[in-house]
Amino acid sequence: MIKVGIIGVGTVGSSVVKILQKNKDIITARAGKEIMPVLGVVQNLDKDRGLNIPLSSNVDDILNDNTIDIVVELMGGVDDAFRVVKKALLKGKAVVTANKAMLAYHRYELQKSANKHAIGFEASVAGGIPIIKALREGLSANHIESIKGIMNGTCNYMLTKMMSDGVEFDAILDEAQKLGYAEADPSFDIGGFDAAHKLLILASIAYGIDAKPEDILIEGIEKINSEDVFFANEFGYNIKLLTIAKKSGDSVELRVHPALINKKEMLAKVDGVMNGVSVVGDCVGETMYYGPGAGGDATASSVVADLIDIVRNGNNSPMLGFKKILENDVLKLKNRDEIFTKYYIRLEVEDRIGVLSKISNILGDENISINSFLQKQSIDKKFATLLFSTHQCFEKDIQNAIAKIKECDFIKQNPAMIRIEE
Amino acid sequence: MIKVGIIGVGTVGSSVVKILQKNKDIITARAGKEIMPVLGVVQNLDKDRGLNIPLSSNVDDILNDNTIDIVVELMGGVDDAFRVVKKALLKGKAVVTANKAMLAYHRYELQKSANKHAIGFEASVAGGIPIIKALREGLSANHIESIKGIMNGTCNYMLTKMMSDGVEFDAILDEAQKLGYAEADPSFDIGGFDAAHKLLILASIAYGIDAKPEDILIEGIEKINSEDVFFANEFGYNIKLLTIAKKSGDSVELRVHPALINKKEMLAKVDGVMNGVSVVGDCVGETMYYGPGAGGDATASSVVADLIDIVRNGNNSPMLGFKKILENDVLKLKNRDEIFTKYYIRLEVEDRIGVLSKISNILGDENISINSFLQKQSIDKKFATLLFSTHQCFEKDIQNAIAKIKECDFIKQNPAMIRIEE
Repeated sequence: MIKVGIIGVGTVGSSVVKILQKNKDIITARAGKEIMPVLGVVQNLDKDRGLNIPLSSNVDDILNDNTIDIVVELMGGVDDAFRVVKKALLKGKAVVTANKAMLAYHRYELQKSANKHAIGFEASVAGGIPIIKALREGLSANHIESIKGIMNGTCNYMLTKMMSDGVEFDAILDEAQKLGYAEADPSFDIGGFDAAHKLLILASIAYGIDAKPEDILIEGIEKINSEDVFFANEFGYNIKLLTIAKKSGDSVELRVHPALINKKEMLAKVDGVMNGVSVVGDCVGETMYYGPGAGGDATASSVVADLIDIVRNGNNSPMLGFKKILENDVLKLKNRDEIFTKYYIRLEVEDRIGVLSKISNILGDENISINSFLQKQSIDKKFATLLFSTHQCFEKDIQNAIAKIKECDFIKQNPAMIRIEE
Repeated sequence: MIKVGIIGVGTVGSSVVKILQKNKDIITARAGKEIMPVLGVVQNLDKDRGLNIPLSSNVDDILNDNTIDIVVELMGGVDDAFRVVKKALLKGKAVVTANKAMLAYHRYELQKSANKHAIGFEASVAGGIPIIKALREGLSANHIESIKGIMNGTCNYMLTKMMSDGVEFDAILDEAQKLGYAEADPSFDIGGFDAAHKLLILASIAYGIDAKPEDILIEGIEKINSEDVFFANEFGYNIKLLTIAKKSGDSVELRVHPALINKKEMLAKVDGVMNGVSVVGDCVGETMYYGPGAGGDATASSVVADLIDIVRNGNNSPMLGFKKILENDVLKLKNRDEIFTKYYIRLEVEDRIGVLSKISNILGDENISINSFLQKQSIDKKFATLLFSTHQCFEKDIQNAIAKIKECDFIKQNPAMIRIEE
């Protein structure tokens, strides 16, 4: 029998306990041994969780118990969790964690400590979708050309509703909060930070690249409005918060931002709270992985799968996918100025002669050419909304152009920009 | 360095050699050791394959070479391949195979021989999609409720074109053959047999159930025509060749047949030659896996991933997912009469009074009630096509009803039936 201690028994932790108990028959048959949750650590011992395991409020009760083989870390946070996980590894225990924030900062240090002990973290990215396993093992023959992910259910729910119902951002946020799809403080999700943590984990496995959240481009969905939705629908796009990792030459782009993507792409069909990750490899082409990215039972499904892997002694893959450093192929993080893509821009302007020619001149000076264009007039005909997309150009040029346009006296509101991914 | 011998150097085998050579840098970094193809076995030594490895026409040159660590079996066929694989395992070599037909018949015998040696077969199901890994490891915490797969690219290409262009079966088959998407003798693909082999492999991993192709319901797509496409489009369905594994109580349904599925389902969006597999687990809910199900490089991507797993010593999971037999939960194959689903039926009838009431009576006698109905008249008004769907009923009853309807004197052509999966 394998004994498991669980640090943090909230939604996911409770599901882990329940699944280990409810599916004991099939889990034992698959793992070869019974996997038993023997102790949970919680902050508040008085709260009734309706669970059938002993609880403690002291982490050391798990760390110092030599009969406990595997620690499941679900306490959250960055540095405290890292210390606990490291201690567990030093004590010879295997660790399973769902903590993406900790991994976004400490995954390479953990890989060193994990050398002889297993560390599973499938649940840290895209909840119930086994994307870590797919990328680290299933696609290991490939140079990964790109990863595009929809990995935040809150954002995807909101954007899906905005696209289908045309409702404005604030109203949808209210609704998402009432339904429990968005937190009381939603900034971590809608600001793109949650998705960025997941991207960094996947990027390490795909490219062996070490980057921190501070190093990469992260933009949230807060500025998207119904004009953008109108343009997207008109030109056959969906709007998604995308996490993007893309290799070109000896550098890798890592970025998180809202993007317009063609409605026909498989990834564009990932709607509501669901997650999807599209991976392009040089041998396999595109594969895509779809499923629930959050929720207690779905996330616990990945936690328990990691437990089974460890008990089977089934997974000796290197934690981050590489047994050795890639000597001749050290990739560097691409400077965001060098991003080369198409852009969509929204401008609120006074409706008078010369405005369009002034904007065209600014764009032309920055080597940007317009691909499609829509103009909408306000009811009193004083203002107009200009919506347009560009051909491919450099991020640096589009940022310069927007800065110049912003200074023009006919601009009524800060210009908005969304990148187009094709 | 790990040495690999490849038996069968056709499209997939050539891709395996090329990928191991072209991606040597990243494969070595991920596996920790270089994986080198050292010998290929082919039937015709005179054919130029443009490959940079020695070739032989004698399988024993690989089997008897003690320096070869892993055998890649791509020779095809059932019993000869099985003998070769068994011999390789007995000689202490690991084996990677893409041979679904061999596995459909011999997977449980192979599992016994594979006890101490690795056997990888990711490439045998859905080409480049790592679905074996997802099911055996990623979803191992779950009781699998159902697997629905689109796992034959030839059929999916043809059905997608029929749905979008309204062209008849024979014309599309011609086109598919010209494009290389269908074999000169297409019966193995369009008859559903290829998909059935893949289904049996997945069903073993999900349910531990041993079944042979002869044991299960297999129907092909040959009878589908433009009337069926018309009905499907009218009522919001797509037509797909589905492989279905579904658990209810202590039995499992295994079947392969064309099915009407709601266009809104993620699986219905898998078009053209692409494959998709939707898996529902009791904890995780639905996850879906999408990608190329055939082609040299995509299939070789999975073969090489298995090689890397073996070299990493990374995969000690039991071959078919179970370390022990499920004692209290032995599942039996459901009798096809007990299938309980909705049905679509197409009838060509003489257009005269009393026909509809006769048909309604037959259906009523078998406890079948109609859900939706369409009638189309022929140009000369002598014949009519009746298209209808039923509410849920038993397969046995629908088969009885169809047999009775077939005997009616107003029937001009054998009735056609497609199951509806919702």
